[in-house]
Amino acid sequence: MSPQKAYEELIKRVREASLLSSCAGVLGWDERTYMPRGGAKHRADQLSLLAGMTHQMFVDPKIGELLGEAEQSDLVKKPESVEAANIREIRHEYDKQTKLPKELVEEFSRVTTLAQGEWVTARQNSDFKHFLPWLEKVVDLCRQRADAFGYEGEPYNALLDEYEPGATVEEVVDIFTGLRKELVVLLGKIKNAPKKPDASIVEREYDVDLQRVFGESVAAAMGYNFNEGRLDITTHPFCTGLGPGDTRITTRYNPRRLNDALFGIMHEAGHGLYEMGIDKANHFGTPAGESASLGIHESQSRMWENQVGRSKEFWGYFFPQAQRIFKNSLGDVKLDDFYAAVNDVRPSYIRVEADEATYNLHILLRFEIERAMLTGDLKPADVADEWNRRFKEYFGIEVDKDANGCLQDVHWSAGLVGYFPTYTLGNLYSAQFFAKAKEAMPDLMQQFEQGQFANLRNWLKENIHRHGRVYRANKLVVKVTGESLSYMPLMDYMNAKYSEIYGF
Amino acid sequence: MSPQKAYEELIKRVREASLLSSCAGVLGWDERTYMPRGGAKHRADQLSLLAGMTHQMFVDPKIGELLGEAEQSDLVKKPESVEAANIREIRHEYDKQTKLPKELVEEFSRVTTLAQGEWVTARQNSDFKHFLPWLEKVVDLCRQRADAFGYEGEPYNALLDEYEPGATVEEVVDIFTGLRKELVVLLGKIKNAPKKPDASIVEREYDVDLQRVFGESVAAAMGYNFNEGRLDITTHPFCTGLGPGDTRITTRYNPRRLNDALFGIMHEAGHGLYEMGIDKANHFGTPAGESASLGIHESQSRMWENQVGRSKEFWGYFFPQAQRIFKNSLGDVKLDDFYAAVNDVRPSYIRVEADEATYNLHILLRFEIERAMLTGDLKPADVADEWNRRFKEYFGIEVDKDANGCLQDVHWSAGLVGYFPTYTLGNLYSAQFFAKAKEAMPDLMQQFEQGQFANLRNWLKENIHRHGRVYRANKLVVKVTGESLSYMPLMDYMNAKYSEIYGF
Repeated sequence: MSPQKAYEELIKRVREASLLSSCAGVLGWDERTYMPRGGAKHRADQLSLLAGMTHQMFVDPKIGELLGEAEQSDLVKKPESVEAANIREIRHEYDKQTKLPKELVEEFSRVTTLAQGEWVTARQNSDFKHFLPWLEKVVDLCRQRADAFGYEGEPYNALLDEYEPGATVEEVVDIFTGLRKELVVLLGKIKNAPKKPDASIVEREYDVDLQRVFGESVAAAMGYNFNEGRLDITTHPFCTGLGPGDTRITTRYNPRRLNDALFGIMHEAGHGLYEMGIDKANHFGTPAGESASLGIHESQSRMWENQVGRSKEFWGYFFPQAQRIFKNSLGDVKLDDFYAAVNDVRPSYIRVEADEATYNLHILLRFEIERAMLTGDLKPADVADEWNRRFKEYFGIEVDKDANGCLQDVHWSAGLVGYFPTYTLGNLYSAQFFAKAKEAMPDLMQQFEQGQFANLRNWLKENIHRHGRVYRANKLVVKVTGESLSYMPLMDYMNAKYSEIYGF
Repeated sequence: MSPQKAYEELIKRVREASLLSSCAGVLGWDERTYMPRGGAKHRADQLSLLAGMTHQMFVDPKIGELLGEAEQSDLVKKPESVEAANIREIRHEYDKQTKLPKELVEEFSRVTTLAQGEWVTARQNSDFKHFLPWLEKVVDLCRQRADAFGYEGEPYNALLDEYEPGATVEEVVDIFTGLRKELVVLLGKIKNAPKKPDASIVEREYDVDLQRVFGESVAAAMGYNFNEGRLDITTHPFCTGLGPGDTRITTRYNPRRLNDALFGIMHEAGHGLYEMGIDKANHFGTPAGESASLGIHESQSRMWENQVGRSKEFWGYFFPQAQRIFKNSLGDVKLDDFYAAVNDVRPSYIRVEADEATYNLHILLRFEIERAMLTGDLKPADVADEWNRRFKEYFGIEVDKDANGCLQDVHWSAGLVGYFPTYTLGNLYSAQFFAKAKEAMPDLMQQFEQGQFANLRNWLKENIHRHGRVYRANKLVVKVTGESLSYMPLMDYMNAKYSEIYGF
């Protein structure tokens, strides 16, 4: 077989495994949106079967052979060609997956599907004990996965790599430590600032149906294509790319808070634009048709949510619309006061509703707890107490109930240990990319004031989305911005914004 | 291997194929309810892959070997044991499926998934030409399937067997011919009757949200369990059993017609009760965990829709509720007039909205056209004209547009050729079962007047649902009623009802 033929056969097989895996995507979306509760056990069986079959297709020794042939050829000569990148990333994944026994893959799928249902119940009743046996199972399975993959340093490295290929705990800790120092200084300034936003403005009555209409119009203005997507309601908002032409988002509405759904929709639509911007028509099912990493994915959602959605220029365009739609609550409000209100900084329980400045502290807390659970230094049974202790230390407030504490996020129930740091990485990438976009388009913020978002969207598509995973995150950031990842662009952006709002 | 071990291994493999197939069920539900239009092509690829993989699992020669071992053992001695029935039906299916090339299975799945999307467009625009190339493809693929299966008599027999195992065109024609003669007499009497219902009563304003609330309360009273199901909106209403604990129904609402959604919901909930009544906890994925046939399935939906939902006793209980909910439209209406209105008989275009008396003429028409397409006597290109000609002949009215004619039903686009006769078989089974239920529970109709439906539901579960496919339809009807299928119970029921309402 010629190397070209071997490559083609490799891609065909990998695509077929991805196609099967994308069926599980639909079942997962359904589970979280519309599945009746009674279907949970059968759904776990279905997802376990699909996970096992996908795994078997992907670890077929024939894939190893084809990879070997392709790797010996000219196809890998240009490391940034689609072919070389596909071969590199398939090899990376193949070497990992072949270390996982099929039984562990199936068990992991089955347990995490069931655990998600149990987490919903535990969260509703704020009952950590109800969730504890599932947390124990999940942590144990995650450790088994880490052991199977193998790792240098601590087991967390093996899991982090699943979400942020090539990243290590040591690098992340390094950058997070610097970020944290700067954040503490910023939060101190905000605490003692002479000016304070009136956040009650965004805590008036906001009719849920009108929130949906407004949110959809904002998503459409961003360029989210509703012919290839839809917006539904879930407890934990998410975006899922189910395949070419089908990228769905969800949100949740609070009739007394405008921010949650609105910025949530912008966040998920930002993820959606990334999925829609990847060239899936040509590359679906291969690394070139996937996102670079979860950190890069999160950079897109956070950019639209914060750099765009919490900018004064964005509201220069959308505030008059919001005033017409929510006349009773916003009719008498000034733009500057509204802008300050959506940028109000204060410690709060819920990560996904946190302001930009405290948000990263939420991540640091989870990151530390996860690492300790994996090394065994922290037992799952002690997680709630440890969470509450640290939360008091970092945020200065007592956690009132576990639903507002360690039960708030879906991730652990879903087996997504190693995922949280990608949120802060996303914030960092986001600020660094956005600074570059403004440099490339000096009138970008003025475009927002005119309701024009196409140039930003196209710049992101051209520089980030269309590359899929051809460049890994750490290479992509250098290619796009000329620099390695740094916490300075994020701090520069936040210091500038908050010094104006808070007058320090 | 002992025969018992062989049987267990056989069941394990068949279950796994069913589990994979049930994933396609979820994807199919999603496609018809919530999938964005842009996902159609990818969905076709997914369903084609699942169809091909399920087929491969099921036709594995190992299944043939295991079947052979089990068939040589005592397991088949009691023909009505679960084991013997499972072996019999798996053999039936295995012998059929092994005759189908995998390529044909995948192509059939792919084409019918795409064709359903094209049918939606064609129906919206009443554009038969748009649908014609897809109809041609589907008919051609159906003929290929029939040829692969093999058949005695005409090719239709091979396809009918997929929906009504063991039934033949010759038997169906025999019973339909008798039914048709009687129907023509009944419709003549109705046409010349002295009394006429005022059907305009059910064509007033019926708020869609209130229709949903009322419909859900009726379905709940029937015993449809919303913890294991849900009700959504689709162009073509359906019920789908996605697995243990998950049986979903859909309907469509017309703000100017009460009947469509209400009786539609009862119809689909009747299917739902069958699915919920099968012992899937023990038998999912095997014939004993499946419905006996589509005709038996339809007997359950039609019984709840008609024998229950269009009875005077049912409305004796529900009419006061309906009057409170739809006060402006029903407040001044008398029960007898309402009862007559929901039983109004008149020729109409749309099958799923047809009254009980003309309904079966819709089926006869489709059955004849399908048979002729399969033999080649009728070309797909001539279907619209032929439909309209026959419709005029049977119903006495001109079809105004193809959306009200040959484009109205989803079946052909979905490749469901051979399915239509099961609707009329369902009506026949329904009347025969219901007559027996009334015999067994002489105060059944009085129970309805008290809003009590549990005894009927339990009788159906005990006598029909729980058996799955242990008895084939023609055996089941004898077991339950003591008689072979006949058109007389249906005609007796209709003659009695309509002679009272129409005063002949």
